[in-house]
Amino acid sequence: MEIKLMKNILGANDEVAAQNRKIFSERGVVVMNLMGSPGSGKTTLLEKTLARLADKIKIAVIEGDLFTAKDAARIEKLGVEVIQINTAGGCHLDAPMIQKACASLNLAEIDFLIVENVGNLVCPAEFDIGENFKAVVLSITEGDDKPLKYPLIFKESEVTLLNKIDLLPFTNFDLKSAREDLMTLHPSIKIFETSCTKETGLDEWCDWLLKKVEAR
Amino acid sequence: MEIKLMKNILGANDEVAAQNRKIFSERGVVVMNLMGSPGSGKTTLLEKTLARLADKIKIAVIEGDLFTAKDAARIEKLGVEVIQINTAGGCHLDAPMIQKACASLNLAEIDFLIVENVGNLVCPAEFDIGENFKAVVLSITEGDDKPLKYPLIFKESEVTLLNKIDLLPFTNFDLKSAREDLMTLHPSIKIFETSCTKETGLDEWCDWLLKKVEAR
Repeated sequence: MEIKLMKNILGANDEVAAQNRKIFSERGVVVMNLMGSPGSGKTTLLEKTLARLADKIKIAVIEGDLFTAKDAARIEKLGVEVIQINTAGGCHLDAPMIQKACASLNLAEIDFLIVENVGNLVCPAEFDIGENFKAVVLSITEGDDKPLKYPLIFKESEVTLLNKIDLLPFTNFDLKSAREDLMTLHPSIKIFETSCTKETGLDEWCDWLLKKVEAR
Repeated sequence: MEIKLMKNILGANDEVAAQNRKIFSERGVVVMNLMGSPGSGKTTLLEKTLARLADKIKIAVIEGDLFTAKDAARIEKLGVEVIQINTAGGCHLDAPMIQKACASLNLAEIDFLIVENVGNLVCPAEFDIGENFKAVVLSITEGDDKPLKYPLIFKESEVTLLNKIDLLPFTNFDLKSAREDLMTLHPSIKIFETSCTKETGLDEWCDWLLKKVEAR
């Protein structure tokens, strides 16, 4: 009975996700679902990404958080349109939440919509929100065993950012092993090594994003 | 309907949690539910804790993971009895999982049972497993905004470990602000600053645990 209901919930979510995807496609918006653990560095990465891309393409952001609007406030400071979704304790964003948030956006004017999901390496990967692609941020400080321990999110994501790469010398993170595990889980996955404090790898990441958006 | 079922699921969980708690109490076992984000350092902290306490009290460990037995293998190496629970993608441990795992343990011989939950700062806090107390590990590299962003887990936990404190100089983590937010959320919360690589704060943490177990 529990399983049956879970299927219904996911089924209903997938229906709305398909509606979202259709609208995004019609309006010419590319949508990225940005995921990762709490503190993997998603919001700082987003700030750096917006600083590089906001004068080239029109970007809007949806921020998912349990309760606060701390992240949305950070994005708003950059002059980028941002919609806050508070899940009231919920552990992921779902398609109906995105549908509702998009009602406040003029999608026809937007090239690239970035959805920063709730900080969680498990649940967000299970919910299609109608995005074009998923991206997962893994901080070096989280450890090189995380791809195999949390495989779904790495299988679902088109791209992984190995973030806080500047902290590599202070950890026992094995970059080679992590890359091998990622390629085993998802042979076509794109991997960037980034540091927002040292500005490493961000140009490559933003070039890649720009190409994704321009190819729409 | 969804909400109603969720209440039923939580209600059923709470019933089994109460049964677990009764059995733990009768057998004289103190149970800690150890939670935190992926990569906050739970397993390494556990290794260090076992090394300090295993000759003083009889400890057993239940390891919660989505798929692998990587963490259980690390604990087993220390000669400590360990039961692996694989949630097959599930984002938290619940009371029935613990009940089932405990069937393989001789509880009467155990003083202290440590349950390492799935790496997740959201969902595990919602599920009582029948523990005596919850502990949450927050890595310095996750950022000082996490207590207010993920309040439930810090409200529910009797103790917070600010872990990887050796990385403080390489981050913008504001220790004072994090401590103030923790005290606002949970005025009686106990806070330890720990580093497993530098062996900081571990004696104080283990002394505190030992007192909790001896006071049973």
